[in-house]
Amino acid sequence: MIETPYLLFLGDAPDMLAAKVAIGIRDWRPENALGQIRLPGCGADLGLADMTLAEARAAGAKTLVIGVANRGGVISPAWKKVLIEALETGYDLASGLHNLLRDEGDLVAAAQTHGGTLHDVRVPTVGYPIANGVKRTGKRCLAVGTDCSVGKMYTAMAMEAEMAARGMKATFRATGQTGILITGHGVPLDAVIADFMAGSVEYLSPPNDPDHWDMIEGQGSLFHVSYSGVTLALIHGGQPDALILCHEPTRPHMRGLPGYTLPSLETLRDTALPLARVSNPACVVAGVSVNTQHMDEAAARAYLEKVEAELGLPTTDPYRFGPGTLVDALAAI
Amino acid sequence: MIETPYLLFLGDAPDMLAAKVAIGIRDWRPENALGQIRLPGCGADLGLADMTLAEARAAGAKTLVIGVANRGGVISPAWKKVLIEALETGYDLASGLHNLLRDEGDLVAAAQTHGGTLHDVRVPTVGYPIANGVKRTGKRCLAVGTDCSVGKMYTAMAMEAEMAARGMKATFRATGQTGILITGHGVPLDAVIADFMAGSVEYLSPPNDPDHWDMIEGQGSLFHVSYSGVTLALIHGGQPDALILCHEPTRPHMRGLPGYTLPSLETLRDTALPLARVSNPACVVAGVSVNTQHMDEAAARAYLEKVEAELGLPTTDPYRFGPGTLVDALAAI
Repeated sequence: MIETPYLLFLGDAPDMLAAKVAIGIRDWRPENALGQIRLPGCGADLGLADMTLAEARAAGAKTLVIGVANRGGVISPAWKKVLIEALETGYDLASGLHNLLRDEGDLVAAAQTHGGTLHDVRVPTVGYPIANGVKRTGKRCLAVGTDCSVGKMYTAMAMEAEMAARGMKATFRATGQTGILITGHGVPLDAVIADFMAGSVEYLSPPNDPDHWDMIEGQGSLFHVSYSGVTLALIHGGQPDALILCHEPTRPHMRGLPGYTLPSLETLRDTALPLARVSNPACVVAGVSVNTQHMDEAAARAYLEKVEAELGLPTTDPYRFGPGTLVDALAAI
Repeated sequence: MIETPYLLFLGDAPDMLAAKVAIGIRDWRPENALGQIRLPGCGADLGLADMTLAEARAAGAKTLVIGVANRGGVISPAWKKVLIEALETGYDLASGLHNLLRDEGDLVAAAQTHGGTLHDVRVPTVGYPIANGVKRTGKRCLAVGTDCSVGKMYTAMAMEAEMAARGMKATFRATGQTGILITGHGVPLDAVIADFMAGSVEYLSPPNDPDHWDMIEGQGSLFHVSYSGVTLALIHGGQPDALILCHEPTRPHMRGLPGYTLPSLETLRDTALPLARVSNPACVVAGVSVNTQHMDEAAARAYLEKVEAELGLPTTDPYRFGPGTLVDALAAI
């Protein structure tokens, strides 16, 4: 567990694209985002109050989160001064970068001296069990994609927010670095050892109230040859009652794999559902989430209508047009 | 690479069941199995010459392989004396036990003093890449099972031996501890970090001659919820041209998962083949391998005939009746 609320460190991020983690925290856990701190030349702005370390600390901030990804995932020397000062001021640090906080001697020394904790959310800290496949109480929803990075996390986040607004019991369960930083806990599934992947998902989503939904963050795609094994472990460990199919219609090929075309939503449905029913025979496909960010509104609405008619499933862009119909579908399960 | 030939250490194994690794080496790489060394009370016997460390060393043995699995996978104190003496005599040690050789201070010290190498084949020693999905030259065959431990490794080993006897180019590619100890190299896939699983299989099976077959060792099952992710990574990283379906007909439920029934061979075929065609559109199902060890010969032959008729595929128990028809099928691809 990472202590909240956060002060969001944007460093010298050249633009908003580099600030994906901080944007996710601001959008989905605004109560965790007390303010932002930026270095000279920073081109990103979350629209939050710019605060010094001391100001944010006085306002209750517990953890300085590195909300930015820079080229190569390294911890730049320009950042070090702020990070060390944060530890001196009583903060914990949290990061999802490849370059681990714990591998930086000066940060480790400052953390030890001042009693701070270094959270490297890429590294599992739990000895996960091997999955036992025993059916758990409570309900679970998992987004599966035609490709990686098509909006699975945003779909689950948007649905969770809508369910909370309706008074439904729902918990987002993070399986990736960004999700873990947003919510403060989760399983860094892509860093788990192969034999324990499905078990880590069982651990992440324990038995719960019969009317409680775990909104499990999806990863990869069954059709992405680099990461498909992670996706299947998530499907089998997650025991979903409901799948949401996720798609980004303008992508020319699978992410990072020229020569691999995206499957159709029908193929995704017909592949994922039988596999999901191995661990949960009651699983259904509840709806379709389309990432329409590269389409104008008319084209987006036309595409959603077409898919809804073809698949006979509620279809929306939950970020752009709201996740209401997807949540309706879960409420009916 | 583990240096061969081996002296096979059977320790105080109570019976042959505990000596699975040593039996595999004797059966599939007899040229690597120079002899056996046993402690008082050992109930296993490979039928190889009993040799002292010095005798086997004089005969050319390079590595003492722990060919036995004991309860809990620990390195028993009773074994230590022989293992240390082996290092003193100039051997390397190789082990697939959970309890790592490198975690035993006295073995590490002896290895350093005498210049020996400790091979813990459960632990990856290579920084594997993320899979790139680029099509590789050469042909690949992968055994996929209705369950774990149904004979996938023996199927690949038996086919490789038959292919070698026919003068075909074939290489067994180990993905598990036993396979690695048998052949001296491979990838311990179940210990690889999730993101690198498929990439480790690409690494294991590099481009090759157009008429060369990699016989890739299968792992887990798409239908075994604990390990299915490993299996899918193997399918997508392996880019198989041919799948062999493997089955053990007498098993009451999935291994270690009461309440999970085995899929039919038809369901396995219809699930595995479309997934395999994601990374290799030319993939076909070439045949069926049935582990009939718990059936008498008449029942076994009747079962094989029935499956062959139902699936329209060459069907055999390659260990009991030979893999000839499966190899015929590969030769025709």
